[in-house]
Amino acid sequence: MLGENNYGKSEVRLVKVHRGAERHELRDLTVDVSLAGDFEAAHVRGDNSGLLATDTMRNTVYALAREHPVDPPESFAIALVEHFLAAGPSVTRARVRIVEHPWARLGSHPHAFERGAGGQHVALVTGDRSGIAAESGIDDLLVLKTTGSGWEGFLHEQYTSLPETDDRIMATAVTAHWSYGQAEVDFGALWAGVRATILSAFGDHYSPSVQFTLHRMGEAVLAAHPEVERIHFSLPNKHHLLYDLERFGLDNPNVIFQPTTEPYGLIEGTVERG
Amino acid sequence: MLGENNYGKSEVRLVKVHRGAERHELRDLTVDVSLAGDFEAAHVRGDNSGLLATDTMRNTVYALAREHPVDPPESFAIALVEHFLAAGPSVTRARVRIVEHPWARLGSHPHAFERGAGGQHVALVTGDRSGIAAESGIDDLLVLKTTGSGWEGFLHEQYTSLPETDDRIMATAVTAHWSYGQAEVDFGALWAGVRATILSAFGDHYSPSVQFTLHRMGEAVLAAHPEVERIHFSLPNKHHLLYDLERFGLDNPNVIFQPTTEPYGLIEGTVERG
Amino acid sequence: MLGENNYGKSEVRLVKVHRGAERHELRDLTVDVSLAGDFEAAHVRGDNSGLLATDTMRNTVYALAREHPVDPPESFAIALVEHFLAAGPSVTRARVRIVEHPWARLGSHPHAFERGAGGQHVALVTGDRSGIAAESGIDDLLVLKTTGSGWEGFLHEQYTSLPETDDRIMATAVTAHWSYGQAEVDFGALWAGVRATILSAFGDHYSPSVQFTLHRMGEAVLAAHPEVERIHFSLPNKHHLLYDLERFGLDNPNVIFQPTTEPYGLIEGTVERG
Amino acid sequence: MLGENNYGKSEVRLVKVHRGAERHELRDLTVDVSLAGDFEAAHVRGDNSGLLATDTMRNTVYALAREHPVDPPESFAIALVEHFLAAGPSVTRARVRIVEHPWARLGSHPHAFERGAGGQHVALVTGDRSGIAAESGIDDLLVLKTTGSGWEGFLHEQYTSLPETDDRIMATAVTAHWSYGQAEVDFGALWAGVRATILSAFGDHYSPSVQFTLHRMGEAVLAAHPEVERIHFSLPNKHHLLYDLERFGLDNPNVIFQPTTEPYGLIEGTVERG
Repeated sequence: MLGENNYGKSEVRLVKVHRGAERHELRDLTVDVSLAGDFEAAHVRGDNSGLLATDTMRNTVYALAREHPVDPPESFAIALVEHFLAAGPSVTRARVRIVEHPWARLGSHPHAFERGAGGQHVALVTGDRSGIAAESGIDDLLVLKTTGSGWEGFLHEQYTSLPETDDRIMATAVTAHWSYGQAEVDFGALWAGVRATILSAFGDHYSPSVQFTLHRMGEAVLAAHPEVERIHFSLPNKHHLLYDLERFGLDNPNVIFQPTTEPYGLIEGTVERG
Repeated sequence: MLGENNYGKSEVRLVKVHRGAERHELRDLTVDVSLAGDFEAAHVRGDNSGLLATDTMRNTVYALAREHPVDPPESFAIALVEHFLAAGPSVTRARVRIVEHPWARLGSHPHAFERGAGGQHVALVTGDRSGIAAESGIDDLLVLKTTGSGWEGFLHEQYTSLPETDDRIMATAVTAHWSYGQAEVDFGALWAGVRATILSAFGDHYSPSVQFTLHRMGEAVLAAHPEVERIHFSLPNKHHLLYDLERFGLDNPNVIFQPTTEPYGLIEGTVERG
Repeated sequence: MLGENNYGKSEVRLVKVHRGAERHELRDLTVDVSLAGDFEAAHVRGDNSGLLATDTMRNTVYALAREHPVDPPESFAIALVEHFLAAGPSVTRARVRIVEHPWARLGSHPHAFERGAGGQHVALVTGDRSGIAAESGIDDLLVLKTTGSGWEGFLHEQYTSLPETDDRIMATAVTAHWSYGQAEVDFGALWAGVRATILSAFGDHYSPSVQFTLHRMGEAVLAAHPEVERIHFSLPNKHHLLYDLERFGLDNPNVIFQPTTEPYGLIEGTVERG
Repeated sequence: MLGENNYGKSEVRLVKVHRGAERHELRDLTVDVSLAGDFEAAHVRGDNSGLLATDTMRNTVYALAREHPVDPPESFAIALVEHFLAAGPSVTRARVRIVEHPWARLGSHPHAFERGAGGQHVALVTGDRSGIAAESGIDDLLVLKTTGSGWEGFLHEQYTSLPETDDRIMATAVTAHWSYGQAEVDFGALWAGVRATILSAFGDHYSPSVQFTLHRMGEAVLAAHPEVERIHFSLPNKHHLLYDLERFGLDNPNVIFQPTTEPYGLIEGTVERG
């Protein structure tokens, strides 16, 4: 028996240029489309007549980008979801995920840019017969504190060997996504605001654990942005090990560290309104 | 308010050697551990006394690997889950995911190997107070048919430009995972059996769509392996475009193709017992 | 002043199907083309009239693949180099590099395959007015010995902390390329032969160092294959650290290892006829 | 016979924190070490007594980082090369390559940072008995112009299908390295200066080809920085294809583009003083 299923087109790459009279703007997106619905005829009997080709989804992304704004990505994702929900009677749910890759203007140049930093803007929109819901997110926001972080008082048992410390490097690549408690939102301004709040909260306290900082950042976002209903974080602990230099007759007062990529701690959690 | 949360250690790399009298065997694993429970004290008050360090989880993986068999990976994952559930009163759910990287003996050499092919064996075990459930899976099983596949009769609308075809290359990287309807299973033999059934079903029919082949492979697994209750597939459509050579005065009777990496179709679905 | 320069097309992906009456064969290649010559007019004056477009190079790869065999890749690379040398008076040197991705037939199926193992076949052909030279190579041949390898008697100085051992895991990903002392070579048979010799030599001795095994493998290739004039190896030392379990009251007689990805030793060298 | 050979340690990851009274600074480096010399005894006879362990090289990187500044990376690489040349009579040449990963301070925070943009600073230092030479470079500097670039008047022949254009997107990831005509250089200031010159020259002209822009950027660097003797560029042409929307009844006046990753043009060249 066929159970849950969906299909779509992934990694549709799109650049849209706004050719203003004085200066150009550009948006650089990767779009994923996924549809769910009654596709049993195709799966079981090889009858494709109810299926939109994934190649058609690709064409649709480019065509709708010509006719709709793509900034903020949430509004473009909503336009795509509305289109795909109407595209055929067999589609019951459409999901569009957009990742925006940042570019920064070269000085005041009218049309030259360099790759920007500060994380990628993610939009995730899901729609079905009952309505459309938008979530926003940020990916790959790398942050690091050289002090103001520790790891003490944890549970000790037979396999525990890690020493306690009240001064370590804390580094992570923030992945976060959040949902809204209201329909009308200025997605672009809010994204910049949530990002700024996360960065500020990352550095505004002594961190006894990644868990504590996760919760602190979540609280700060909910406090500063009433539109946000709930925020989820996924925070890899990018360990920086103090290198043992004593054996070579050298001290190491939290100066020389070895970053490691594997294994890594992974701390995930949601902070939501009570 | 703190919502759903979990933490753990990811990408713990482990090789275990069985040093038999005549020949060595080896298992090469990547282990992810994730715990959920009552961790509010750490998140909200910075009280770590209920937290196992993720470094301790790492040590535990190596220590338990010394004492337990790691083959099949499901049984090792079960041992780890049982250990972590007992590790502290605040843990209410433990998840362990293991990926096994294949090695093949060099001829009949007693202790030399080369990297194997055929996909990675995945074990995913979750346990809580009510019990422990094991799932198995396969990742990165690349398969390709040079013919016996088409894409016809699909829905045509305003943004449709793809021509129909009854002869194309079908290629995918199978990711699948399946659950069991019974507790006692010979995980190793069954994994090899499911893999063989998937490969056989991939090639045993004319494929009118990736959806049809997904369902066909699922049906074949359920028919051949009564222990399997449900199987989920994620099948990227690795497109191979017929290259246009006519403009250079050459024909191209399904001989010269351009594989593309992006965008790609993604077809996902579950086949389960009725 | 313009110095050394070259340009071309990289990562041209090509699959060619041989549709035999009984069974299909396929070749899956990635082709890089690079041309050098007198391109000063383009660089300095913006005069492109002597430049072949890199898009044309792409078309040429597909068109010539229709008309020439692509197996072995060396012979196809030679055909491409000959074509590009003749393509314009400004080209003085052409280089083509081809990497072949392995596929293995599914049982005796006439047209279904799975991704193969055992390393990638590389062909590197360079031509200029004085002639054409072909080199062959292998990439990504992962091998591992669980014993029969050590590291002792090395230089000890102020920053040395590594203990000596006469029993460790040795693992590497062999990258090798070799040149020929004669023009007429059966590239396909020879590639399989060199690969088999490398694998056999990897396991046929106690290895006191990666350097020793590098030289041993090179000697074996030159001894077994008189056509080969010189062979170069690049051997990353994929370290497997014995995990310290004593602190947990467990022994570890070369059974439990932690593979690490960084940093890694890198040993490179050439073995050639005297 | 053993020919050219070398060995070393690659991807040594190092973070050094400067704990100033008011604020911290950090440097995040990846270091590769490679030594050449008379290592025949190890290769041929298994005599390791002349070999420094690559693990010792790793320790040395961390120990010397404690005692020497690591900023600019060229000066740290010089210190490492001098050390390794003196480390044993069998070493005749030492090479150290350092890549610096950029971090940007979070506002005016004393010790919190986010990952920076703008390319990675590379230092490449080689030393032998005759002296030491330093080169500098930049990796992964992504730049894009939405107009002011074309590709016309190129050679047309049997496999040419690309239309000419005087308005396209030009995008590349600049990799460059340069050498110096003098020994005493302020590497840090000069690196920032060369980077600024490359960015400025990228956007200061209509580009008839990547080759022309390569030469233009090289000329600009040599003109602005008399210390630089020669600069080499490697410029992948990151193609952005105008998407065909006419078939859907839409125009596309250079607004909607499809970025592609493969294949890509690759243009390389050196500009040097006459």
